[in-house]
Amino acid sequence: MMIDIPALVVGLDLVGVFVFGLSGGALAVRHRLDVFGVLVLALAASLAGGMIRDVLLGATPPAALRDGRYLLAALAAGGVVFVGHRLLDRLGKPVMVLDALGLGLFAVTGCEKALAFGLEPVAAILLGVLTAIGGGALRDLLVAEIPRVLREEIYAVAALLGAVIVVVGERLGFPDGAVAIVGVAAAFVLRVLSVACGWSAPRAPWS
Amino acid sequence: MMIDIPALVVGLDLVGVFVFGLSGGALAVRHRLDVFGVLVLALAASLAGGMIRDVLLGATPPAALRDGRYLLAALAAGGVVFVGHRLLDRLGKPVMVLDALGLGLFAVTGCEKALAFGLEPVAAILLGVLTAIGGGALRDLLVAEIPRVLREEIYAVAALLGAVIVVVGERLGFPDGAVAIVGVAAAFVLRVLSVACGWSAPRAPWS
Amino acid sequence: MMIDIPALVVGLDLVGVFVFGLSGGALAVRHRLDVFGVLVLALAASLAGGMIRDVLLGATPPAALRDGRYLLAALAAGGVVFVGHRLLDRLGKPVMVLDALGLGLFAVTGCEKALAFGLEPVAAILLGVLTAIGGGALRDLLVAEIPRVLREEIYAVAALLGAVIVVVGERLGFPDGAVAIVGVAAAFVLRVLSVACGWSAPRAPWS
Repeated sequence: MMIDIPALVVGLDLVGVFVFGLSGGALAVRHRLDVFGVLVLALAASLAGGMIRDVLLGATPPAALRDGRYLLAALAAGGVVFVGHRLLDRLGKPVMVLDALGLGLFAVTGCEKALAFGLEPVAAILLGVLTAIGGGALRDLLVAEIPRVLREEIYAVAALLGAVIVVVGERLGFPDGAVAIVGVAAAFVLRVLSVACGWSAPRAPWS
Repeated sequence: MMIDIPALVVGLDLVGVFVFGLSGGALAVRHRLDVFGVLVLALAASLAGGMIRDVLLGATPPAALRDGRYLLAALAAGGVVFVGHRLLDRLGKPVMVLDALGLGLFAVTGCEKALAFGLEPVAAILLGVLTAIGGGALRDLLVAEIPRVLREEIYAVAALLGAVIVVVGERLGFPDGAVAIVGVAAAFVLRVLSVACGWSAPRAPWS
Repeated sequence: MMIDIPALVVGLDLVGVFVFGLSGGALAVRHRLDVFGVLVLALAASLAGGMIRDVLLGATPPAALRDGRYLLAALAAGGVVFVGHRLLDRLGKPVMVLDALGLGLFAVTGCEKALAFGLEPVAAILLGVLTAIGGGALRDLLVAEIPRVLREEIYAVAALLGAVIVVVGERLGFPDGAVAIVGVAAAFVLRVLSVACGWSAPRAPWS
């Protein structure tokens, strides 16, 4: 069975937009922002990573401006958070878990799209990581928090893992759909496990 | 009488550059920055929104780099603030009022240019809002303030109103010049009134 | 002897990437970030300025994604800092000195590349300054510091000097290699001297 790669990228991308939108909205609620602040932060968290990806690839206007479903997914996420954030809270650490899922999804779609545009594997991996961390970094900067990618131990590494799996899987000729799912899952699991288990990475010795 | 749309966009754009430049310079003075800090913040506030717009449209190099009047307007605004900021202060809340005018101008020009590049109405509105809030957000981030778009109640909504008026006016076949003026005025008035009257938007209930 | 301008830009660019990468890594160590934080900040400081330059010129994908040596230089800088930061510390104010060198290198390469893409002299100077201050600004924002370009007296001006020397030198027909070296040196020396001597620029009078 053939899998339509562009459709696969768009599908996973839209899920990434939705969950990153939830993470942005949840952060806005935690900062006691009003309904418009929730929507702005949902939009920033969910669309910035893909816009950076598309601008760097020269794929302008970016997908978020060409395909109305992106905006719809982002706004829907903001609305869901505004209405249902108490339910989200009960699920545990919602920003972290949603952010981890968005991280994996965007790492994979960013890397897949970069390969489709003819970038070399290493550059495609870098672009995947950038797609994955861009929206969350902007989200955190906008509320004056140091971005998660710098505060947390295993973050960029989780995105890196997802992107590397895409490149290696493609090289080995595995089916794109399976590779994408494995990549997303690996990045997500590594990120969530690292938080749950308190894994830490080495620091430079400080005399 | 025919109105030259590109010329209209450039004209309003340059006014937007100048007033956002004033807002950036005024914020720099309030933070006690030196003359170069005033110029850098004037440039960031006034040129970043349009640069983001042009990069997302694929209209590179952006107008601010192709047309010397943009840089001139931004630097003139910085110079005016440096020399005359005490006069500006006496006009009340200068950063807020100038920012509101820039917000309306950039929402309209961003949306008009996006329509001229063939974007769909909803995407054109999103790009108008992004053009309008981009420069101010960078300006505030650079001095470590949470951007106005998140702190203030009615901000992105005012830009949204200006952009929606452009799209609706174009659909209804009204003359471009009139639509642009109404859009700028509506965004400006809504923003200033919301500050003057202390309007607030609903927050998510917090248990 | 003919000098290959693109090769000259790439060569100086790679040196700029490396020294800005060192500055980003050193800042990360000072903020006690782990090894991945050191690498992320090295990448941000070293690649963002050139990416902004290439995106604004429409030269996508940017050099940092097309040429693997950029990523290699940035990661090498991060690795060097992580292993040898105590040695770097002993050299004095490492972030400041490396940042000053990167500032001069990127101002010159940004301006040269802009001229090669046909931009007018003033726009090329602006793009040179933007290339020079972009990476450092992102680096500082990511760790919640107000960017050096706003805190420090002579910073954007040093980049401006380097870019102006490139434009004037090209106009006068001087050899590109010599012009580039003089531009880098002038920006670097002005910046370091201004810090060493505590030069300050005028502030707007505050009643």
